[in-house]
Amino acid sequence: MTKKYMLDESLLPRQWYNILPDLPEPLPPPISPATGKPVNPEELEAIFPKEIVRQEVSQEKFIPIPEEVRDVYRIWRPTPLIRATRLEKALKTPARIYFKFEGVSPPGSHKPNTAVAQAYYNMREGVERLTTETGAGQWGSALAFATNLFNLKLTVYMVKASYLQKPYRAILMKIWGAEVLSSPSDRTKTGREVLAKDPENPGSLGIAISEAIEDAVTHENTKYSLGSVLNHVLMHQTVIGLEAIEQMKLADDFPDYVVGCVGGGSNFGGLAYPFYMLVHDGKAPKKVSLVAIEPTAAPSLTKGEYIYDFGDTAGLTPLLKMYTLGHDFIPPPIHAGGLRYHGAAPTLSLLRKHDIVKSVAYDQVSVFQAADFFAKTEGIVPAPESAHAIKAVIDLAMEARQKNEEKVILFNLSGHGLLDLAAYADYHQGKLPAYEYPAEKVQESMQKLKAFLATIGQS
Amino acid sequence: MTKKYMLDESLLPRQWYNILPDLPEPLPPPISPATGKPVNPEELEAIFPKEIVRQEVSQEKFIPIPEEVRDVYRIWRPTPLIRATRLEKALKTPARIYFKFEGVSPPGSHKPNTAVAQAYYNMREGVERLTTETGAGQWGSALAFATNLFNLKLTVYMVKASYLQKPYRAILMKIWGAEVLSSPSDRTKTGREVLAKDPENPGSLGIAISEAIEDAVTHENTKYSLGSVLNHVLMHQTVIGLEAIEQMKLADDFPDYVVGCVGGGSNFGGLAYPFYMLVHDGKAPKKVSLVAIEPTAAPSLTKGEYIYDFGDTAGLTPLLKMYTLGHDFIPPPIHAGGLRYHGAAPTLSLLRKHDIVKSVAYDQVSVFQAADFFAKTEGIVPAPESAHAIKAVIDLAMEARQKNEEKVILFNLSGHGLLDLAAYADYHQGKLPAYEYPAEKVQESMQKLKAFLATIGQS
Repeated sequence: MTKKYMLDESLLPRQWYNILPDLPEPLPPPISPATGKPVNPEELEAIFPKEIVRQEVSQEKFIPIPEEVRDVYRIWRPTPLIRATRLEKALKTPARIYFKFEGVSPPGSHKPNTAVAQAYYNMREGVERLTTETGAGQWGSALAFATNLFNLKLTVYMVKASYLQKPYRAILMKIWGAEVLSSPSDRTKTGREVLAKDPENPGSLGIAISEAIEDAVTHENTKYSLGSVLNHVLMHQTVIGLEAIEQMKLADDFPDYVVGCVGGGSNFGGLAYPFYMLVHDGKAPKKVSLVAIEPTAAPSLTKGEYIYDFGDTAGLTPLLKMYTLGHDFIPPPIHAGGLRYHGAAPTLSLLRKHDIVKSVAYDQVSVFQAADFFAKTEGIVPAPESAHAIKAVIDLAMEARQKNEEKVILFNLSGHGLLDLAAYADYHQGKLPAYEYPAEKVQESMQKLKAFLATIGQS
Repeated sequence: MTKKYMLDESLLPRQWYNILPDLPEPLPPPISPATGKPVNPEELEAIFPKEIVRQEVSQEKFIPIPEEVRDVYRIWRPTPLIRATRLEKALKTPARIYFKFEGVSPPGSHKPNTAVAQAYYNMREGVERLTTETGAGQWGSALAFATNLFNLKLTVYMVKASYLQKPYRAILMKIWGAEVLSSPSDRTKTGREVLAKDPENPGSLGIAISEAIEDAVTHENTKYSLGSVLNHVLMHQTVIGLEAIEQMKLADDFPDYVVGCVGGGSNFGGLAYPFYMLVHDGKAPKKVSLVAIEPTAAPSLTKGEYIYDFGDTAGLTPLLKMYTLGHDFIPPPIHAGGLRYHGAAPTLSLLRKHDIVKSVAYDQVSVFQAADFFAKTEGIVPAPESAHAIKAVIDLAMEARQKNEEKVILFNLSGHGLLDLAAYADYHQGKLPAYEYPAEKVQESMQKLKAFLATIGQS
């Protein structure tokens, strides 16, 4: 029987949850790669608006969500919480499985939760244009959706290989008024230098970030926007978990497991941090396991080291303390483009270090098998990223069946897969490589990182 | 300000509205092309299950929705009613614009409202497999979604040109377990004959229908399913309008205009018929104009004649009294594949004849301009079919502005456009032909039809 828990609009959260004051130890500060010393927050104001920088380091437990942002959220929020009764039945499991469905947003994922907030704060501070990078395009399309509604211009540097192979998300960005450039482009010094050496360069996320940041710092009234990893981004995503807490009350239930996929960590943090808060505040009715799911192609939390590293591939950002595989490790081309990241958010990495968050990695073939099964049983086609969470949920549900335990599992279905159908076709035709953990490449990348860190007295 | 009217699940309709007993005159019966005499309903049981045939001719005003069907509806229903406040503001119109958003269903359109019901009744009567045809794939994917949930097999004959050029909907059907064949196929006598004459034949909806019906009648426990035109199909869609009536109460408002696009008529009828019912029963607080929107490429209600014609291009179905452009008129290849139909549902045609429904036709360039404007203001990318309704709504809203009248406009946003982004790219690049009304081809097709009707004593 279909069990869907809708939340009345009056219960749309009025504040985000900021995990910083509740962490088990203070978050190590970002440090400058030039000096090895902590970065002054004000230095970040070259690329971010003041309010975002303030939120990035705030120790306030709750930050009010501006009414203008809540008003845009209401286009698709509160999102449904659905009990996966058909999946439970197919698995013959005594477990109760719930999912929060973020795919109902106009761009089809959880990404607009932060994109709308960031666009709003930039607009408020008189910024006229934002720049960003995007790989497969989930983030770029979410930011285009947001900037369009707040009358900001947007320039998206989209990795050339994706721009050519996956044209649909670029079209979506253009519908919402964004300028989409194939990166490397001739718009920036960085891009021109790359093209001068190799006119056929297919681009990379690292090059695209460099172009977006250069564009922002060299133009008036222009700022840069990031879709994951940083504290303020994960905080904006906590609307997901705050809603889910209210909806689990409607279901008269509470999770033993909270599960989400992790690239940078924004959809996982968005769902899991509010449940962490309940545990931290002694308000959880029982123990909750927080489980982060990664691809074997880029398992930073599962196989990486907790160490300072650059947030980007090109080495332009401050150094962040996090689980990483080394910033110049380029993950294999799995279809879950949003999970192809070498590190994990600093807050999430700290929770992992304290064993408060567990992590597991799966190869994409087993992940698509789970996604296909989910689409057949529940009728919703998941994004390849979210499918990683589904694979883990099915494993947990089968374990509950073997042990005959009524476990309660909650996961984040962070996006739909309607713009990823070609990946499903590859899976059906047996064309999907499994991509095991690329240990040697990671080792190389980590050695380089450590050699660099030694030069600035870090290890 | 975002104004979204969600309906509590307890208000999901428990019965469909059947317009047959409320029509201004009895619906002319389907007649046999061989004899010119009315078809016996039982003859339809060769291709449809008994309950569907019963519903097709039922004079009961309300038909209960089985609980098993309501349970599947609840996966995405009730759908939201949204007031397009951002569009109103952009148009500076005093009109209040509301839309019912059917794009939230897993296949992305209103089509599963009838697909689920049809799959259920077939399952109940022991049918093991359904067959159908599909053009661009909206209907095929909706039926695949439905048959998958009721454990029926499905064979979809997909027009070869679409199968090759628009692979995404075929992938979606396969995810949901359907067998998708490029039509003409070697599976049927019809298909083999076509291929023998011309191995490169690109297919047509007519050939695909012939194949699907032949497959159904030549196999045990196999029936055929249709996605529009017939009475039972439009009746299943009335959940849309029945929900909208309750939601307009929540908004404390009532429409002056109810607007929808028309191919066969199912999304239009689904929204408009329940409002017709209120008027018919003397329960409407004011006069309501029902406005059907067509493409200039296939304007059956706007330019056609009210006459008996075949429901399909191949001439296999009984003759239906309807507005038609002639069954062998092949509409130009507009992107709104769901509107490329030569006729219109018999019930809708009767309302048009009595001037209860008005119709207007627009070319696809002006339609995409409206769709693009809607995506920018409201943030939702509409399907090319639904965009026809949006074009009309914008015109009505601008008229209200000129006359300074507070008109209330309600329309059906019958699907999202995420699988139609290539069409938007064509529009942005100025590659979209306008396709004016093809008067000469229609004239030819109508002459042939009338010559045929004369042979069986009809005109």
